[in-house]
Amino acid sequence: MSNRQIQLAARPVGQVQPTDWAHVTVPDAEPGPGEFAGRTKVISLDPAMRGWLDDRPSYLPPVGIGDVMRAGSVIEVTASNHPDYRPGDHVLGTFGVQEHVVSDGRGARKVDPALAPLTTYLGALGMPGLTAYFGLLDVGALKEGETVVVSGAAGAVGTMAGQIAKVRGARVIGIAGGPAKCALLTDELGFDAAIDYRVDDVRKTLRGLAPDGIDVYFDNVGGKILEAALGNLAMRARVVLSGAISQYNATEVRGPANYMSLLVRRARMEGFVVFDYADRFPSAVREIAGWIADGRIKVREQVVTGTVDDFPSTLDMLFRGENVGKLVLRLA
Amino acid sequence: MSNRQIQLAARPVGQVQPTDWAHVTVPDAEPGPGEFAGRTKVISLDPAMRGWLDDRPSYLPPVGIGDVMRAGSVIEVTASNHPDYRPGDHVLGTFGVQEHVVSDGRGARKVDPALAPLTTYLGALGMPGLTAYFGLLDVGALKEGETVVVSGAAGAVGTMAGQIAKVRGARVIGIAGGPAKCALLTDELGFDAAIDYRVDDVRKTLRGLAPDGIDVYFDNVGGKILEAALGNLAMRARVVLSGAISQYNATEVRGPANYMSLLVRRARMEGFVVFDYADRFPSAVREIAGWIADGRIKVREQVVTGTVDDFPSTLDMLFRGENVGKLVLRLA
Repeated sequence: MSNRQIQLAARPVGQVQPTDWAHVTVPDAEPGPGEFAGRTKVISLDPAMRGWLDDRPSYLPPVGIGDVMRAGSVIEVTASNHPDYRPGDHVLGTFGVQEHVVSDGRGARKVDPALAPLTTYLGALGMPGLTAYFGLLDVGALKEGETVVVSGAAGAVGTMAGQIAKVRGARVIGIAGGPAKCALLTDELGFDAAIDYRVDDVRKTLRGLAPDGIDVYFDNVGGKILEAALGNLAMRARVVLSGAISQYNATEVRGPANYMSLLVRRARMEGFVVFDYADRFPSAVREIAGWIADGRIKVREQVVTGTVDDFPSTLDMLFRGENVGKLVLRLA
Repeated sequence: MSNRQIQLAARPVGQVQPTDWAHVTVPDAEPGPGEFAGRTKVISLDPAMRGWLDDRPSYLPPVGIGDVMRAGSVIEVTASNHPDYRPGDHVLGTFGVQEHVVSDGRGARKVDPALAPLTTYLGALGMPGLTAYFGLLDVGALKEGETVVVSGAAGAVGTMAGQIAKVRGARVIGIAGGPAKCALLTDELGFDAAIDYRVDDVRKTLRGLAPDGIDVYFDNVGGKILEAALGNLAMRARVVLSGAISQYNATEVRGPANYMSLLVRRARMEGFVVFDYADRFPSAVREIAGWIADGRIKVREQVVTGTVDDFPSTLDMLFRGENVGKLVLRLA
């Protein structure tokens, strides 16, 4: 019995290269006392993963060279010496990019495949959905009737942020790359308008679509699109820093040159890390699940079926903007 | 009778040039019904003036070409048809860079030269003092025992921000240019430490002086010093955007490349405009005046004596970092 793993082989400089990963096969571990073993079913792919590869202080320690790549996943328990887990249980945790897992259950929780597809526990009901929820409602302090702009709007977090904003009575403009994504936003997900950053002048288009300014800007991308939003803020606007995918592979980050718009507009730009809200996850997940059940929020996922060896090429899809909604690798 | 004025002749590109100003003599105006006339005594010079010269949306409209340069000043009333003002009264207002003023009193208020020198109504008891007060205590939400870093610390706002932070029980580090300014901060104004950005590595020095991170960063300068501070934030830090003097003459502004530190540190960066707090000015001025009377806050001013024609060269002193404390032009 062997376990296939994707380990970090080298620290990427700029864009992640295939040589930054090691594909290794190790002997399968047995669960010790108080532990359970499981087989990985679905693995999450997230823009934040790029940051975990850099050796600098962040909200989580960097993935070490030679370590299994960190990733959220859902496993199915195959053997257990843990009183709370039985074979056949499905468990969500940060189990890493590997076929087989041994865990003592810390940071893990059981999920019910009858209530939602396993993939959804990594997306709408997982970190992306929760990031959208707390970023928009807590950090962004969104109020009914306000104008919200979401960048990376067709991504895992963006699709949820825009739809949650709609549920809460906001006017929502999404920014995404390409006509297909823009059509998805307005035609399927209920966004009021969409801007294609690949062809539109984002700053001018925002001015036209939000003549009274943006009240909440939910940023997943950074770079020039952040600047375009900062140039169109309403008074007392809130800029929610959720991500900066346009900058993650940059060797020199572009800071927002017009950040002093925050002064002129008496606005604030604020960062957050969703793990800080862990004590409120259960109630937030219940609320999101209710919106999904009511049909007020549509779940969008892009599932790649393959093996753990497909992880590196699947991760690249995120940075090429090829995914729509939550990107997941399902192990065949 | 004539009135000498400094008017804006051209919009500066980058650094303000002498040719951007017109020195003109116009006939002296008489006060109409409900108006008073006065002679300018002291004129304020402020970094924010640079922003008023640019033709772009801001918290005040740009100074028009051919307009008298906008400036706060204190005048002495020489003639009055206004029921509230009598000859000999001293009045604070935005009267512009000119020798003689006619006003209907809107936005003006009387000041008492027996309670404080006229210059102090432009500095510690004026906009700079109030900017420091509301920026630190309201926007920055400073709490006792926190670590505060002030840039532009030897300037009009910086000297006040650092001293108010000390009064409120904070540990205060000032950043300024040159050994004389740094000595002023620690030896005279009670700052706990000073960093000379001209010779010190600001980021490393901050790390040593504030190993647990900065709780409130009060920024008057922007640029690389803002980046150094963002690289040393404590969790839930507040970055108060008061000014960005290092960038005002830049044709291409440097945005903070490490702004995503705000995410890692769950921190916020927030702008404000002191005029928004106008209803609380009287109580704030009383509190600051009390601290000055108690000797807990020392007033630092640099007074240039001359004519309105000296305004352009005096303004340049601000951007060359030549002033210590509040820079004022006193008309001889």
